[in-house]
Amino acid sequence: MLSKSQLQFIKSLHQKKFRKEHGLFIVEGIKSITEFLHSDYTVHSIFCTSKVEPKIGNFPKKIKLNIISERDLTAITTLKTPQGILALVKAPDNKRLDTKELKNSFTLVLDNIQDPGNLGTIIRTADWFGINKIICSEDTVEAFNPKVVQATMGSLARMSIVYTDLQLVFQDNSIPVFVALLDGKSIYETTFGNEGLILLGNEGNGVSKNLLNAAMTTVTIPRFGNAESLNVAVSAAIFCSEIRKKR
Amino acid sequence: MLSKSQLQFIKSLHQKKFRKEHGLFIVEGIKSITEFLHSDYTVHSIFCTSKVEPKIGNFPKKIKLNIISERDLTAITTLKTPQGILALVKAPDNKRLDTKELKNSFTLVLDNIQDPGNLGTIIRTADWFGINKIICSEDTVEAFNPKVVQATMGSLARMSIVYTDLQLVFQDNSIPVFVALLDGKSIYETTFGNEGLILLGNEGNGVSKNLLNAAMTTVTIPRFGNAESLNVAVSAAIFCSEIRKKR
Repeated sequence: MLSKSQLQFIKSLHQKKFRKEHGLFIVEGIKSITEFLHSDYTVHSIFCTSKVEPKIGNFPKKIKLNIISERDLTAITTLKTPQGILALVKAPDNKRLDTKELKNSFTLVLDNIQDPGNLGTIIRTADWFGINKIICSEDTVEAFNPKVVQATMGSLARMSIVYTDLQLVFQDNSIPVFVALLDGKSIYETTFGNEGLILLGNEGNGVSKNLLNAAMTTVTIPRFGNAESLNVAVSAAIFCSEIRKKR
Repeated sequence: MLSKSQLQFIKSLHQKKFRKEHGLFIVEGIKSITEFLHSDYTVHSIFCTSKVEPKIGNFPKKIKLNIISERDLTAITTLKTPQGILALVKAPDNKRLDTKELKNSFTLVLDNIQDPGNLGTIIRTADWFGINKIICSEDTVEAFNPKVVQATMGSLARMSIVYTDLQLVFQDNSIPVFVALLDGKSIYETTFGNEGLILLGNEGNGVSKNLLNAAMTTVTIPRFGNAESLNVAVSAAIFCSEIRKKR
């Protein structure tokens, strides 16, 4: 059973402020927790119901498994449909951007993405396509938000994510930048080569004008119908697909 | 001001049961409502706050605009961030499937899609790529669910959606069927031609086995990284993109 203060502590991690303060975030579900156990992240503690415990495979023994009641699990879960198991994972310090690391690979650069489901889906999609670096503007939704974590379906464990002032990213001109805008060259006629930054903008307003410069290649997903725009996670997916198929 | 019974009536439409009973659903936001006003749908009534009224452009005068208080709007909205304007729109009767109408075009066929955000995003993406027909299994989430409507960003107004037993769809063998599975031919090497049904399955379980037959072409989005699967709306988007770029 969890004490009142334990319950309060875990519930506090539903909020960004306390995640920052304690350097911990919540991961739920056996599959996602397993991905974090096999990653560079440090799993701090695991809480599960006696019903779910027998379903757990080979979790490392050094991490204490706390068996808790259904009621306690319901109190601490961030999900509408709780999965009976919840872990606290240490949030790594935000890495400093090293533009040298961006050479010879593709990196997604996200400008002010607000919807947690979108960021989570982008992380999952990037992982599918073998892209493992994402740079986010400082005003992009936090990657350790429970809704982001859930939508990544475990892919967060394999993704390197840096939050930074995007102006700093584009100071280095040695890597080509492809920016998703509505009035660019067709993505189907774009040559991506073997490295680059893919810059995608906010759900409502697109990419901030002050980030754009003449050296960037403007790329558009051609419209064949009538919708005014595409969802940003959908755009990101089509970029990832086009990059990979051309290699 | 809205009477208590009017408030209750509109709030009842948050639930599927009452949407079915009254044949009405809720659309919110000026942009989306405008799309429905310019579509084959019948807009039944519009409610907006005095703050939002001046922002409305040229709505047809025959539809009565009910000016209501912020408080009433807050009571009837389905959104976390209400947009100050809400319309009730008549739900058309579910059309009978006519497989002849599927010739010479592409149609998405959705098997048991559960997440409203996914269905909404699929409708929006299909509209972008000029695909205007979607067939849903009877257990797919209802297209008039407020979260679906919201995620379509107005594209629902242009989409023909039929709910039916999918077995009936695949009885007609004259149109090629492409089914999204993990062990098929690469989508990048698939020739789509100029017509077809794209069959996409449930978020967790994929396409129902009993729907599959040997005449279908199994298509896979190749994996370059480590994610176990792609979000279904992302898969749908990559299919739409590949279909269009090859025409």
